[in-house]
Amino acid sequence: MALSHLIDLNDCTTSEWDELIRLAADIRMNPEDYLSRCRGKIMATLFYEPSTRTQMSFQAAMLRLGGQIIGFDNPINSSVAKGESLKDTIKIVSGYSDILVMRHPIEGAAKAASLYSNCPIINAGDGGHLHPTQTLTDLVTLSIEKDGLTGHTIGLCGDLRYGRTVHSLIKAMCKIGGNRFILISTPELTVPQYIKDVMDRSGCEYTEVNTLEECIGDLDVLYMTRIQRERFATPEEYEQQRGIYILDREKMKKAKKDLVVMHPLPRVDEIENEIDNDRRAAYFRQAVNGMYVRMALILKMIENNLKIEDTPKILDNNHTCHNPRCITQQEHYLPHYFKKDAAGNLACIYCDDKQR
Amino acid sequence: MALSHLIDLNDCTTSEWDELIRLAADIRMNPEDYLSRCRGKIMATLFYEPSTRTQMSFQAAMLRLGGQIIGFDNPINSSVAKGESLKDTIKIVSGYSDILVMRHPIEGAAKAASLYSNCPIINAGDGGHLHPTQTLTDLVTLSIEKDGLTGHTIGLCGDLRYGRTVHSLIKAMCKIGGNRFILISTPELTVPQYIKDVMDRSGCEYTEVNTLEECIGDLDVLYMTRIQRERFATPEEYEQQRGIYILDREKMKKAKKDLVVMHPLPRVDEIENEIDNDRRAAYFRQAVNGMYVRMALILKMIENNLKIEDTPKILDNNHTCHNPRCITQQEHYLPHYFKKDAAGNLACIYCDDKQR
Amino acid sequence: MALSHLIDLNDCTTSEWDELIRLAADIRMNPEDYLSRCRGKIMATLFYEPSTRTQMSFQAAMLRLGGQIIGFDNPINSSVAKGESLKDTIKIVSGYSDILVMRHPIEGAAKAASLYSNCPIINAGDGGHLHPTQTLTDLVTLSIEKDGLTGHTIGLCGDLRYGRTVHSLIKAMCKIGGNRFILISTPELTVPQYIKDVMDRSGCEYTEVNTLEECIGDLDVLYMTRIQRERFATPEEYEQQRGIYILDREKMKKAKKDLVVMHPLPRVDEIENEIDNDRRAAYFRQAVNGMYVRMALILKMIENNLKIEDTPKILDNNHTCHNPRCITQQEHYLPHYFKKDAAGNLACIYCDDKQR
Repeated sequence: MALSHLIDLNDCTTSEWDELIRLAADIRMNPEDYLSRCRGKIMATLFYEPSTRTQMSFQAAMLRLGGQIIGFDNPINSSVAKGESLKDTIKIVSGYSDILVMRHPIEGAAKAASLYSNCPIINAGDGGHLHPTQTLTDLVTLSIEKDGLTGHTIGLCGDLRYGRTVHSLIKAMCKIGGNRFILISTPELTVPQYIKDVMDRSGCEYTEVNTLEECIGDLDVLYMTRIQRERFATPEEYEQQRGIYILDREKMKKAKKDLVVMHPLPRVDEIENEIDNDRRAAYFRQAVNGMYVRMALILKMIENNLKIEDTPKILDNNHTCHNPRCITQQEHYLPHYFKKDAAGNLACIYCDDKQR
Repeated sequence: MALSHLIDLNDCTTSEWDELIRLAADIRMNPEDYLSRCRGKIMATLFYEPSTRTQMSFQAAMLRLGGQIIGFDNPINSSVAKGESLKDTIKIVSGYSDILVMRHPIEGAAKAASLYSNCPIINAGDGGHLHPTQTLTDLVTLSIEKDGLTGHTIGLCGDLRYGRTVHSLIKAMCKIGGNRFILISTPELTVPQYIKDVMDRSGCEYTEVNTLEECIGDLDVLYMTRIQRERFATPEEYEQQRGIYILDREKMKKAKKDLVVMHPLPRVDEIENEIDNDRRAAYFRQAVNGMYVRMALILKMIENNLKIEDTPKILDNNHTCHNPRCITQQEHYLPHYFKKDAAGNLACIYCDDKQR
Repeated sequence: MALSHLIDLNDCTTSEWDELIRLAADIRMNPEDYLSRCRGKIMATLFYEPSTRTQMSFQAAMLRLGGQIIGFDNPINSSVAKGESLKDTIKIVSGYSDILVMRHPIEGAAKAASLYSNCPIINAGDGGHLHPTQTLTDLVTLSIEKDGLTGHTIGLCGDLRYGRTVHSLIKAMCKIGGNRFILISTPELTVPQYIKDVMDRSGCEYTEVNTLEECIGDLDVLYMTRIQRERFATPEEYEQQRGIYILDREKMKKAKKDLVVMHPLPRVDEIENEIDNDRRAAYFRQAVNGMYVRMALILKMIENNLKIEDTPKILDNNHTCHNPRCITQQEHYLPHYFKKDAAGNLACIYCDDKQR
């Protein structure tokens, strides 16, 4: 039977998401029932770039299932950086392990690794491309905090143009359906057109606004993200506008009593510290949910129980992916695989880049 | 019930120390009885500066109790160094863990962390301020090697002015009482006045001498520490005087047959290698005792069984701690808490600095 | 009873090797029988230079036996690099652990450590000197893939002059006996004379050839290694000759159907990626065998069941080892121990350097 890798959350059906969410919620309530479920199993965490919190979350998840961990978090100077190909590292480490968790700065690296691994792989972030366990964390948190995933008015605030987290969450909530979005950003940082198309196709309404204040009273959920200083047109605009996107006690007064405030963390200053003790601030609970949903995922994958739909691959070594940040630009032995979308366009199977 | 953090050894009574010492001694004799006592529990070691030996001692302690470990030892490049506040890191990691062990270069960091943690914290060193498990290690070793903690003539040799370890040990032995100190150093490196006051108040006698040779025959215990080259007035004085503070076979000939030689390690050259095989050299046994006392401490804290007296806190945001090495200088959201000593003076609750 | 350290594979008899090989094979077939054999035991991995793959292999081995791991992989900045002697680090860490695995850039470091350790030590590489578990991995792989260790025609290809791995393997196969070697290299990179002497004394035939093509059809085993670009006389020779030593599909067509291709890894380009799916490519299986043989070794050593013949040591502090890469040049407290070979020559007991 084929191994199931979790590279892209969209390779699972929403009913598979539901199972993961329900399992995570059960583990959260009854952790002692799961203490030995992965006894004798080893997870390798291959972090080609450091991401301390994500790595600790995965490690705690595996240990709380009774499994064990090996891995690295800083490949500089290590043999894996000494000219060894990704393929060879994966071949070897997957021979020592029962599951791999991989973080890599290059887009498509996790997909590439999955071609060679002898055990299941979880994508823990491949450059700016995908980070499926972050989105799963958001879904579990929404589900627990709001008792379900439909019927909500969801505000998303901050850098909506470049934020991978926000795009993945909108896509996931549109696949589930039955929600309404309010998009809160500067005019320069609105969501890209292809995300608007996703919302339109799904039948989910959305509104774009420029201030948090004008909409906070309508929201059931507020998903905050960071706006990097350099995203503003000028330093003056930054100084002038930043307060509009900072959540403070004043703005919270206008919010519903059962608003849920989420944030993928780390935050810089977009949520004031004074909000942390507000019952509606869910972001620290969200971080802990990340551990529970990773437990659910690891458990299903170790028991070879995660259903993944594998996209049909077209091998075309005459074409090369044009994305300069794609893993195929770096690991030259990789076969040039593409997939065809509904419109008949080719996209790179590693980085999802549409080929021109 | 409130969580018990071990930030400062003086937050425990001496009867609480006794319990820890007795438990450590029992674990040392019957380690197999404790193999599963922390099964299913996770300890996070948050080392904001590397301290390999301390970290390995804590890790071995937790593993020998059947628990598991996550953590970091080098936050450079990691997300915890990327502008995330100490508060946020502690909130998140304490959500993954059952106990935190924290080492930090800034004074008061452990106390600050304890305000936000969802699980007990052990201070594994906060700058030059406190390192309670080092002192506990010294007490356990003394207790085992000399069969008790009173009635001893204790020599302390080396840099008595700047050595945190020595100050903490003197304070602890004075609290226990019934001991005599011989302080062996250059005139420039004698103990500070406030330590002399502690000894005076406790009724413990002390003598200050300039050479190891003149007093070694009187000692029951000799606690050696390093004198850094740069502490001497001139390089010439260093060359001339250093031999006076080096323990060698010649000096050991004048010592009692049941002398106990201790050292917090690492040593440089203040104890000759030739002494290591002398039965009286206890410093390597001392290091192993460090593991046993950490096992005792972790066990009591995981079972929420450590009694801590919490100092009453005065909130005074009009005052700012003046210590430039205090954690409040760096983490600006921290409330400005002070405590009042017997004389009515305010001291910063994080770094213990007396406010002028 | 004396501790058994594995510093040099030649301190064991071939019947001891046989036992390790048989145990490794049994663990490979019945891993679940060994899941708890090291429960409650701790292995410390002291990696004074990073070697990610070797360290992960040892860690996975210990975890699959139910044991636990502590250690470091990058002593820069850590206390072990802050002037602490190797002796002190070993004294302390061996007090926390049940077995030590040590990697060090200096020749003889593992032997030096074994003088002070309170628990068994495994040498995981000491500079360019010894790496016994690599050779054990090769023996296990040969034994499994070829159903025995004698009667084979073994090709060794690449840098035969400087390759420690190749020298150790030839010595081991000569001690076992009954094999034939074909040595494939440029004239500048042939095996050193002392290795030829070993083969001659053992009665194993050998032939030296310049190309892989001329001999591949005769081989039962092909052991590939890397030739570093700088080993060639000129860049022109490198470009001209490298293809002669690269294994590709064309050359594999001339090889026997049951050839076994091995490589210590990491490879650079001396084996084409297209070979990886050839059933005869054994190098990734070899890497996994490394984990099983380390399990066998750890298990025997933890159970104090490995028989080591200890060489008689001659203490001669008037002599100093002349090898500039020897650990005695760095750790000055080490006693100057030598051993006498059959011809009466003295050799340093740490680095095996023959004294002039």
